[in-house]
Amino acid sequence: MPQTQTARLMDGTGLARRIVESSSATAADILRHTGASPCLATVLVGEDPASVTYVRMKRSRCEKAGIESRHVALPASVSTAELVATITALSQDPTVHGILLQHPVGPHIDERAAFEAIAPDKDVDGVTMHSFAAMGFGLPGFVSCTPGGIMRLLDEYDVDLTGKHAVVVGRSAILGKPAGMLLLGKNATVTYCHSRTADLPAIVRQADVLLAAVGRPRFITGADIKPGAVVIDAGYNPGNVGDVDFDSARERASLITPVPGGVGPMTIAVLLAQTVEAATRQLGLD
Amino acid sequence: MPQTQTARLMDGTGLARRIVESSSATAADILRHTGASPCLATVLVGEDPASVTYVRMKRSRCEKAGIESRHVALPASVSTAELVATITALSQDPTVHGILLQHPVGPHIDERAAFEAIAPDKDVDGVTMHSFAAMGFGLPGFVSCTPGGIMRLLDEYDVDLTGKHAVVVGRSAILGKPAGMLLLGKNATVTYCHSRTADLPAIVRQADVLLAAVGRPRFITGADIKPGAVVIDAGYNPGNVGDVDFDSARERASLITPVPGGVGPMTIAVLLAQTVEAATRQLGLD
Repeated sequence: MPQTQTARLMDGTGLARRIVESSSATAADILRHTGASPCLATVLVGEDPASVTYVRMKRSRCEKAGIESRHVALPASVSTAELVATITALSQDPTVHGILLQHPVGPHIDERAAFEAIAPDKDVDGVTMHSFAAMGFGLPGFVSCTPGGIMRLLDEYDVDLTGKHAVVVGRSAILGKPAGMLLLGKNATVTYCHSRTADLPAIVRQADVLLAAVGRPRFITGADIKPGAVVIDAGYNPGNVGDVDFDSARERASLITPVPGGVGPMTIAVLLAQTVEAATRQLGLD
Repeated sequence: MPQTQTARLMDGTGLARRIVESSSATAADILRHTGASPCLATVLVGEDPASVTYVRMKRSRCEKAGIESRHVALPASVSTAELVATITALSQDPTVHGILLQHPVGPHIDERAAFEAIAPDKDVDGVTMHSFAAMGFGLPGFVSCTPGGIMRLLDEYDVDLTGKHAVVVGRSAILGKPAGMLLLGKNATVTYCHSRTADLPAIVRQADVLLAAVGRPRFITGADIKPGAVVIDAGYNPGNVGDVDFDSARERASLITPVPGGVGPMTIAVLLAQTVEAATRQLGLD
């Protein structure tokens, strides 16, 4: 019989709440000292229902935390030049401290050009090339929110990454790639797997720390999880299902994030925390 | 008995020569069309003998290829502000097409600030944050020269990277890290190992493509090389010794770069090629 155990859950909901409470307290301090609240600009192109919902949720969370949000809704027909001009104006506006461009922006738009119009010191969503390189080189800067949330969870549960084999399944620009760089910065041995990986289970089985970020429901099962591994499930598929088969994985892992309530809540918490941090710096309060 | 064979050598000297010949022909075209040659500015801080030699070698290779080089020698006592100002001026000078800041610049200088003063379109050495992110995201831009040379060698020898397990030993900002990103961009499964990796041989043994970039003489031996692997030795240690024990590795690998004559010559070739490419674009000849 293989070793079985029941993994301890990593409580993203609770940690996220504490982060938001701390950010909210700082936002209140900022208001007291300056007469204005930290401000996040949200930019939405078109009316994709999922995007509308995400932005509304982010704005609502800002409001509850005492962070002002300024919403810019642009028609789906907006050009790259118009979108870049809008974001550039927000980058130059001293009353805006953070900028979030909701992805995706539509196939006719050069999304990279739009992201790059975000000033690095306002890139609280961690999407610019500058922020990616900062994560890669271990330099000061804002992190992509989901990878940043994952690192905070690992830290909260005292996971020492030095020398551990971290396997990242997925290589997107906002999740897998930056997460791998952050894990490498913490001295993990890092493997990037993806859709073209030849023998994925053979590599997943080596993971001391497994990050699933592929967007395929229950793609990774307990049979492929190394006993005692730390399992981070960044998937969020229809029906509240992660990329990891939770029930079987839980019998093998030592620590695991549930879906929902694991990585999900951390993403917005990091967004709010970085917005408050950006405001603190831009207002000279640090 | 383990499978033994004698690996085919990857001839960096020959490929580098062909790249330089091609760049030289383009440089001659540029001179004919514009009356001026492509120009690389080399910036050297202090008089470290190895750095002096490297810069002299690079300038000599430029000259032979019909690329003008403009040398800026600064005293070891130069401040970060002065160095940044010098590089910013070169970034703005339309007669300079590429900029190379010789590493290292001395411990009292903020080297990152100096690198970031290089305009991305003149970053022919591929050291800026912009260039790193471009490599990470598969966007247009200049590559770090040694990783770029390695990718050209792999391409020259028809190494299909898709689904292959590429193991990068070393995680420096100018070699290991960007090389891993380029390999990932070619659909390899990529593992980053380093000094803190727990069981290095166990991971090296899985490598279909092994990149040794640690700067430790004969650090990797044939016993740890998977039969048939492609072995890229980016090490260059005293006595013309690589990071791989060549004799034993050659009995296991299918393709291997010798030291010298493998990766080494490719680095300068890519520097020259990117300088000519930068001039071509800046002069509107593309």
